This record gives sequence, C-alpha cells and structure tokens, in this order.
Amino acid sequence: MKNSKALVLFSGGQDSTTCLFWAIKNFEKVETITFDYGQRHKTEINCAANISKDLGVPNKILDMSLLNQIAPNALTRSELEIKSENGELPNTFVDGRNLLFISFSSILAKQKNINNIITGICETDYSGYPDCRDIFTKSLNVTLNLSMDYNFIIHTPLMWLDKADTWKLADELGAFDYVKEKTLTCYNGIIADGCGKCPACELRKNGLDRYLLKRKGENIDEFRK
Amino acid sequence: MKNSKALVLFSGGQDSTTCLFWAIKNFEKVETITFDYGQRHKTEINCAANISKDLGVPNKILDMSLLNQIAPNALTRSELEIKSENGELPNTFVDGRNLLFISFSSILAKQKNINNIITGICETDYSGYPDCRDIFTKSLNVTLNLSMDYNFIIHTPLMWLDKADTWKLADELGAFDYVKEKTLTCYNGIIADGCGKCPACELRKNGLDRYLLKRKGENIDEFRK
Repeated sequence: MKNSKALVLFSGGQDSTTCLFWAIKNFEKVETITFDYGQRHKTEINCAANISKDLGVPNKILDMSLLNQIAPNALTRSELEIKSENGELPNTFVDGRNLLFISFSSILAKQKNINNIITGICETDYSGYPDCRDIFTKSLNVTLNLSMDYNFIIHTPLMWLDKADTWKLADELGAFDYVKEKTLTCYNGIIADGCGKCPACELRKNGLDRYLLKRKGENIDEFRK
Repeated sequence: MKNSKALVLFSGGQDSTTCLFWAIKNFEKVETITFDYGQRHKTEINCAANISKDLGVPNKILDMSLLNQIAPNALTRSELEIKSENGELPNTFVDGRNLLFISFSSILAKQKNINNIITGICETDYSGYPDCRDIFTKSLNVTLNLSMDYNFIIHTPLMWLDKADTWKLADELGAFDYVKEKTLTCYNGIIADGCGKCPACELRKNGLDRYLLKRKGENIDEFRK
C-alpha cells in the first residue's frame, strides 16, 4: 500500500491514534480528519490536532455542529448523564454517526485524490451500535464508490480486535507509550489514563491491564526458552 | 402504502413537488425536509416552505451550510457561472450530495418513526451525476438499513421518467397547474416559468413543450374515436 495516500478519521483517542500509526506505517502520505460536533471537551479536538502535528500529518477539522440539529445526545450535551441501560443502546448513540463521518471523509478524500479511508470502528466492542459492524462498513464502501464513481477502500484495522488486542497492535507499531501518554479517551476530558471512573476509562484500563498481563506472560515464556 | 408515513426530500422545484403530490396520494402522513446549503436564492427555501404549508405538510429546514466547508461550487457560489463542458460534469456538481441528503433525511425520519423516504432523483436525466443512478440508490438503501438497523424504503417515483413524463405524472396526480405555477426550478430564482434562459429553465420548458404536444395529440386521438 506504499505509494498511496490515506485519510484517517481521527479523534485523538486510543483507537484512532493506533490507526494513525498503522496508516503511517502502511501508506506513503497520510492525513487526518477530525469532526467537531460539540463534544463535551474541546480538549478532544485540541488533542487530535496536537497529535497530528506531532506526527507530522496534516489535520483537517470539520465543523459538524449540524449534528446537534438532528440528534441531541449525551456525547454532545454535557448536561446529560452517560448511562447504558441493560440491553439498550447507551444514550451516547447518534444514529448514523459513522455513516456521516465516513461519508464526509470520503467526499473530502476524493478532492485530495486520496482513496484509502481508515477508521477505527470495531465490531468486537460492539455495544449495540449497528454502524460499527463489518457488514455495514462493506456496504457503505460499495455505496460510496457508486455515489462518487471512485475507488475508495475503507480500511478497518481494529475491526476484529478487542481492547487488549488494540494495545498489542500499538505496541507492535512501536507506539505503546505514545498512545498511553498522549491520547484522550476519557469522557471527562483527561488525557492519558483519564479520570479512571467513567465507562470509557474503565474500558481502556481493562484492555490495558489484560494486555499487560498477557505481555508479562509472554515475556516470561520468552525468558524460559 | 396507506397507513404509513413518508418523508419527502423537498426543494420546491418541479421534480420534488411532483414527488410530494405522489406521496400525499400514497401515504397516510407526509412530511418534507429541505436543505439550506447556501443556495443562490433564498427564494428556493421560501418556496419549499410555502408549498409545504400550502399542502398542509410539516416542513423541516436543515442548515447544511457545512457543505460549503467541503465543496465550493456553482450552485452555492453565486459569483461562479454555471456551465457544462462537453463530456464533463457540469460544475454544479457536489460529490456525494445525494448521499448526504438522503442520509440526513433518513436519520431524521427514523427519529420520527418514518421509514419511507421519497426523493426525486432520476437516472433518465443523468448528466453524469453518479449519485442519481438507481444502482446507487439501492446500494444506499441497504447501507442505511444496516447503519441504523431500520427498515427504510427509498422511493424514487421519477427514476425512469424524462422531463415530459414528469409533467405527465403531475397531470395524472391533478397537480399540473399547481406544479407549473408554484414551483421554482430557475437558477435565477424566478418561480413558475422562470427566466427562460438558464439551463434549468430550458430543460423544464423543453419537457413541458413535449408533454403538451403529446397531450394535444392524445386529446385529438381521443376526440376522433
């Protein structure tokens, strides 16, 4: 995939930063696109811009405040509490969000003669979001190609990884410390290990602990050989 | 299709107004959605709102000025001239415009428990826009359903009609005079027959003339029987 160009959907979080390292390894030229849709913390936008700058890739921030016209929800309304009822979609859900983000990314990508689109969406962590599924992504890929008569390729390097696997991938890409120290996953806007209490921090820490345990085990096995 | 609800993508032009009459005939409850993306003439937005009110259907105007961030073009920039070079896409082209409009419409429709989406896109008038094609619409339909885990049905009553056929359909729906007198197609923002000089007026008049000739012929045949 060298000699070709890629656009990474980039939030500055663990997943998309791992995707960015993956893209830098696999493509000649990489750019990032970040969606500003009234996130609770502008820290997220700044974090995405800073990491992009730090890694030497151009970053475009697209104002998606339009989303507030159609889907008020917990991720964009700081007064709402984030919670997930048993068996129900968490109320961070915005119907069609990945549909819109990947569509806008593709429109911009085509203007830049970029046909590789990279997103960190993941079916493994599937928490009821239908637009995180592999089948959706593949269908959207066909739709986008028909829509613009262009040969987009949507890459989803995290599709079948769990959170521990994603840490492993970051490690393999030589980006473990960078991802751990520089990315923002926390709903309370705290970079690196975060507040430690919100669901996003819990998920991240759980994956990290599992990966570190596994790595320790492997190192011991390695040592014993 | 009675007892069900439909959302019509509505610009206040000939095509979407014909679709609106078609929807009113075929569905129990109908609403319209209009996209404000910095069209040259606010008349278009007003026209859409007025027709909706006139026909007794709720109209939602969605601010899509966001589109100007990604695709400056002749339809939104009044200083640019509209022209179509031989064999090239006319520069009114916005990549992915129907993709976005139908996607946003569907997201809103789901919130209102509406699963029928009606759009006037048409492959017959195909002037190089890949997202006017039937195959695109069908692919998007599948993608939308996967995206939101919902049973959308995209209806395209004009897909295989030419401009004369569309006048015929309006006539069959008892809306010929209404469409002729109340809709706005003209690039110069003049309702009904328009400026008569811009490409949109030429296309509309050409279809109308052909339909009227045909209707006259049929009436004569009818008279001779």
